[in-house]
Amino acid sequence: MAGSTFGNIFKITTWGESHGRGIGVVVDGAPAGLALDEADIQKYLNRRKPGQSKFSTPRREDDAVEILSGVFEGKTTGTPISLIVYNQNQNSKDYSEIASYYRPGHADYTFDMKYGFRDYRGGGRSSGRETIGRVAAGAIAAKILQTLGITLLTYTRAIGPVEIKASPCELLAQNHAEILAKISENPLYMPEEDAAGRARSYLEQCIKEQNSAGGIVECLVTGMPPGIGEPVFEKLDANLAKAMLSIGAVKGFEMGDGFAASASTGLANNDMFSISEQGSVGKQTNHAGGTLGGISDGSALILRTAFKPTPSIAAMQQTVNKSGENIEIQIHGRHDPIIVPRAVVVVEAMAAVTLVDALFVNMSARIDAVQKFYLK
Amino acid sequence: MAGSTFGNIFKITTWGESHGRGIGVVVDGAPAGLALDEADIQKYLNRRKPGQSKFSTPRREDDAVEILSGVFEGKTTGTPISLIVYNQNQNSKDYSEIASYYRPGHADYTFDMKYGFRDYRGGGRSSGRETIGRVAAGAIAAKILQTLGITLLTYTRAIGPVEIKASPCELLAQNHAEILAKISENPLYMPEEDAAGRARSYLEQCIKEQNSAGGIVECLVTGMPPGIGEPVFEKLDANLAKAMLSIGAVKGFEMGDGFAASASTGLANNDMFSISEQGSVGKQTNHAGGTLGGISDGSALILRTAFKPTPSIAAMQQTVNKSGENIEIQIHGRHDPIIVPRAVVVVEAMAAVTLVDALFVNMSARIDAVQKFYLK
Amino acid sequence: MAGSTFGNIFKITTWGESHGRGIGVVVDGAPAGLALDEADIQKYLNRRKPGQSKFSTPRREDDAVEILSGVFEGKTTGTPISLIVYNQNQNSKDYSEIASYYRPGHADYTFDMKYGFRDYRGGGRSSGRETIGRVAAGAIAAKILQTLGITLLTYTRAIGPVEIKASPCELLAQNHAEILAKISENPLYMPEEDAAGRARSYLEQCIKEQNSAGGIVECLVTGMPPGIGEPVFEKLDANLAKAMLSIGAVKGFEMGDGFAASASTGLANNDMFSISEQGSVGKQTNHAGGTLGGISDGSALILRTAFKPTPSIAAMQQTVNKSGENIEIQIHGRHDPIIVPRAVVVVEAMAAVTLVDALFVNMSARIDAVQKFYLK
Amino acid sequence: MAGSTFGNIFKITTWGESHGRGIGVVVDGAPAGLALDEADIQKYLNRRKPGQSKFSTPRREDDAVEILSGVFEGKTTGTPISLIVYNQNQNSKDYSEIASYYRPGHADYTFDMKYGFRDYRGGGRSSGRETIGRVAAGAIAAKILQTLGITLLTYTRAIGPVEIKASPCELLAQNHAEILAKISENPLYMPEEDAAGRARSYLEQCIKEQNSAGGIVECLVTGMPPGIGEPVFEKLDANLAKAMLSIGAVKGFEMGDGFAASASTGLANNDMFSISEQGSVGKQTNHAGGTLGGISDGSALILRTAFKPTPSIAAMQQTVNKSGENIEIQIHGRHDPIIVPRAVVVVEAMAAVTLVDALFVNMSARIDAVQKFYLK
Repeated sequence: MAGSTFGNIFKITTWGESHGRGIGVVVDGAPAGLALDEADIQKYLNRRKPGQSKFSTPRREDDAVEILSGVFEGKTTGTPISLIVYNQNQNSKDYSEIASYYRPGHADYTFDMKYGFRDYRGGGRSSGRETIGRVAAGAIAAKILQTLGITLLTYTRAIGPVEIKASPCELLAQNHAEILAKISENPLYMPEEDAAGRARSYLEQCIKEQNSAGGIVECLVTGMPPGIGEPVFEKLDANLAKAMLSIGAVKGFEMGDGFAASASTGLANNDMFSISEQGSVGKQTNHAGGTLGGISDGSALILRTAFKPTPSIAAMQQTVNKSGENIEIQIHGRHDPIIVPRAVVVVEAMAAVTLVDALFVNMSARIDAVQKFYLK
Repeated sequence: MAGSTFGNIFKITTWGESHGRGIGVVVDGAPAGLALDEADIQKYLNRRKPGQSKFSTPRREDDAVEILSGVFEGKTTGTPISLIVYNQNQNSKDYSEIASYYRPGHADYTFDMKYGFRDYRGGGRSSGRETIGRVAAGAIAAKILQTLGITLLTYTRAIGPVEIKASPCELLAQNHAEILAKISENPLYMPEEDAAGRARSYLEQCIKEQNSAGGIVECLVTGMPPGIGEPVFEKLDANLAKAMLSIGAVKGFEMGDGFAASASTGLANNDMFSISEQGSVGKQTNHAGGTLGGISDGSALILRTAFKPTPSIAAMQQTVNKSGENIEIQIHGRHDPIIVPRAVVVVEAMAAVTLVDALFVNMSARIDAVQKFYLK
Repeated sequence: MAGSTFGNIFKITTWGESHGRGIGVVVDGAPAGLALDEADIQKYLNRRKPGQSKFSTPRREDDAVEILSGVFEGKTTGTPISLIVYNQNQNSKDYSEIASYYRPGHADYTFDMKYGFRDYRGGGRSSGRETIGRVAAGAIAAKILQTLGITLLTYTRAIGPVEIKASPCELLAQNHAEILAKISENPLYMPEEDAAGRARSYLEQCIKEQNSAGGIVECLVTGMPPGIGEPVFEKLDANLAKAMLSIGAVKGFEMGDGFAASASTGLANNDMFSISEQGSVGKQTNHAGGTLGGISDGSALILRTAFKPTPSIAAMQQTVNKSGENIEIQIHGRHDPIIVPRAVVVVEAMAAVTLVDALFVNMSARIDAVQKFYLK
Repeated sequence: MAGSTFGNIFKITTWGESHGRGIGVVVDGAPAGLALDEADIQKYLNRRKPGQSKFSTPRREDDAVEILSGVFEGKTTGTPISLIVYNQNQNSKDYSEIASYYRPGHADYTFDMKYGFRDYRGGGRSSGRETIGRVAAGAIAAKILQTLGITLLTYTRAIGPVEIKASPCELLAQNHAEILAKISENPLYMPEEDAAGRARSYLEQCIKEQNSAGGIVECLVTGMPPGIGEPVFEKLDANLAKAMLSIGAVKGFEMGDGFAASASTGLANNDMFSISEQGSVGKQTNHAGGTLGGISDGSALILRTAFKPTPSIAAMQQTVNKSGENIEIQIHGRHDPIIVPRAVVVVEAMAAVTLVDALFVNMSARIDAVQKFYLK
């Protein structure tokens, strides 16, 4: 098991290496009858494209997706949707040197330990290009969520030490379209112009020092019905955590207040319920981030994912080669000094995939709902 | 799917509610030939027992485990091991009132939304007693790890705002037995006496104010061979994250430096490799927390899990009842002002279960190893 | 993985050995709100009880089931339902001799090869008592099917060379209650009195010769909506086949005409469609046994399962002992000369479990149905 | 879940329709270090190619496979192997008429019932071309088995009423290379020239009558170590049954004597053990077909799979159209009057995939083996 499949009912299986023929995903369990074409997916893929600013790799990749199966006359058929993005513009010579040693912060050493050897070209399967399959699948998941009135808003919360000021709840209180516009306006996908400016300066400093930066991606989900997620191991929180930590370079995950909640008190952290003017049950605050006991409570989901700094840096580093010698290296080539902006859509994609699966799994939770479904 | 099964090859299935007949787990995939008796499991369960200090609920629960299957003549047979702890000392009357309203911070509301009604006695399936099954299974997993030279060290890093000073690496540098002794000495399971003292004062203040506290549990794993974990969705990090976020009240998870890494730089965060005096490959630091690309790198695993404050507090809170009215409540009864010390063993158990599964899944990663296994 | 879990969404996990503390099952994914008590399950378990005729073992087992979790105030809660039947009346001494050798036709040798040793008492995990968990879970599944208007009719088609005359379609044309009554009237569960008489004589002859018999169980399912089952690996036929071949002593499985279809022609075997008087699509015949392309077509499901003769016989047999010597043995003790009548309910249970899972998995097959489910 | 993934550890995920861009499979869990190139897979695919005799469709399909990922420098890397066969030579016009009605014996009606509509071109996902993915994956599985000394021999046992005479055990007693040659000599893949001749005459008669035939495929596996397969739901028999019944047009499955065993007696059907001259435990007969209690016993596996006659026939048939009218149809186009010879390699492929998975799952069955694996 190479662990390339994710999900229970809405399952995605990704494949592909940085310098192989291509990268792809098989989406199994997309419902029949969903309008879908390549543009729906390409729109998502374009959000992870490099080359859009000086903070991302100057490689030019078209990353044009093709739908190979599962769509007929513009609609999904219910059978597996196979998506492929052919690799182009690979320059394997760039990577010939790194075959002989282990780059710090990369999976070179662990792949060799696990498999005895590795496809060293561009990181092989541990390349950031592996996320193409996730994003393509996430585009389909997001479209399913859209038909159910569920919306995802994902952006960069922090780059290095530079963080936006607004809390998730403050952002949710703003006009959605305006926020989206603000996020798209700057290449760092930060919803605050001021923070984006400071982050830009910070990154320029990093580049000058042949160094790199990490950051935090935040994802807010509105419109999620209450009752989604299973009470024990398949908690919504648990599967979202797995989804996020399965992305390369991710080192931390939080729901709602996350680690800050651990320093709070019950009285401050509990979200009190109250009846809205329309008579529905709501929460006065959302420290929990949209779940209680692992099940959605009808308020917005708030997830936060921490990315480590890009490990590929031009500065001198110590490491070892395969002959067992200590050596010094400088990693040349086309690398992002920060991957966070490009990871925004990856986080959104994995969240979407996880939520669709949870929604489908939940459909048999009540006998009366099952009866209503099958008896006319 | 109520999501009560965890693991791919080493699978655990838990069941049971706070006030039903009992709580249990079926462990499927424990290898045959492991010496195992009830004392091995009871030892673990005793670590999550309440009533050991004034900071945990005064309920007296014996929580005596019985092995119902899968062990013959003192050894596991390879078939499912069914473990049960009968519930005792339940006082359902304590909970009759809460049937009518939704406790803030609890899963009452979400269970009702999902299932249409709920077993309201003591939290039902969302009770902390649900972790008994996890801990019992974890005891078996830990015994398997022990036979492979893999050791877990788990303790309270923080209670509310009070945190220990030593870093994971500093603790790992100390004598293991001494650290273990220090952790066991205080009822809060903190490895630093000073911090434990301040945490105790903080908790006393919480109790006085009818409030509660959260905290952070840290787990360090040594002896893990390199190469464990799968490269994409079944990353060791991903499954550990899922394991931790599947525990009730957990809101955050970190590997290694976690969120702090996101504010660091590549140069500072990359763990440089070097050749040890014995000629083996090692890392000079361990910011990554023991994995690279989701696969263990031979250094210690470092995991950190954030628990929110106990939601059951005696202070006045606002909420709603099932008739749709805003009400004020005070939750009486026997509740822990802090669950973190009792959660230490739950974290350790879930980590152990996850690691055993990853070790078993990895066994077919290389054709030469498979051949060596099957050909004589 | 000891492979003790079955199903995708409606999952059952069985455990227990013949001479351990008990036998049980955890049913995860039963919808909330289903009325359920122990009598519902006991009714099913009673159908597999031994001691009801001279053709089944004279052991007296009460096999009283207890519900340990997942039911509150008479209804399922949506959380795992743990069921247990304590073992009673075990006489371990009966089995002490067989520890040293391998009984022909039993799993003694293969368990030793796999696990290095075995629980030799009464077959351990490979005992027929393992089916108690399946039947208990099947009782819940059958109750779910009943609420959806789906009915199972299961009976003995053949015992040794004695087979009933009526075809499945002929039986389906008869009055359901009368057929059920006929089946229950004779201890062999054959729906034809005449065949039952001849089978009885045949079995008496087998007993006299210290020999045993096999047979065929047939299961007919009516009321199944069309569209259930997935098109490729999760075909309804495929999962039913797995369900049946997972029962001990089963050596063959057929849907509809089964092997006979392979000798037929397309023209004779194709079920032609026609419009019924009510205007609905139906088939003029049912050679296929209720599925097309692995998906239910609205006609009755017809499944047939072949059981080998009971391997435990009193006649002299050759075998080997663990010291590597050829020996002769006679197996004494309380054994059924035929297990088929007791297996009827096991087949029905496994069919029910498989169908419930397929029904639940199907609920997200169409986007319009998903939208109708979630949007009000 | 469209159910397009098969296996626990060695997982295959297939996708593609008859008239889409192509057909493919992702093989996840193939061990690293296996020598593999496209020729290894093409060799298998060529065995299912049409156009090799007048008994298979005259369509010309090159079905050239491409490896898109998972292989580097001629060896598998341990990461997912994505294989694709582009569709060529599709003539969608051939199928335009059948969009309006339901072909008897096909999945047209059930797909419409499940999904609301269907890709009607050439059967879409329910086309026989779906098996290309299975065969491509099976080629990899078979290569893994080969490195472990496990060999599969698969052939046509029967075509319509014409069956070969030799029993599986008689065939196993013959020279393997000679049998293989005999099978490959005739386009029907029957190991007996005489039977092949009569089958040819029978098929010619079928064609003349615008009719079609079914048949039986038998697969024999030698070299399988004892101890493989799990004792309850993951019995080797159960997974093989699922594998076979998941192939389109399959209606029955048997292990060893199968249905014939149900009419036998315990004394006749039990395989007695004896010590071989080399001192190893063996069975004197093999009625069981290589398993006891669902676990391999070291003797040859014997599986038999029944295929119904090709449903596409040129003779006049009654059916209904989507307007709810009774109509008469004649199916024109390029169809096999028998699919059995082309299905031989599909059966072999699915058997190989199932066995590799069972071998990998078994690796953690014993604690001493796990220790030996991980401790040096």
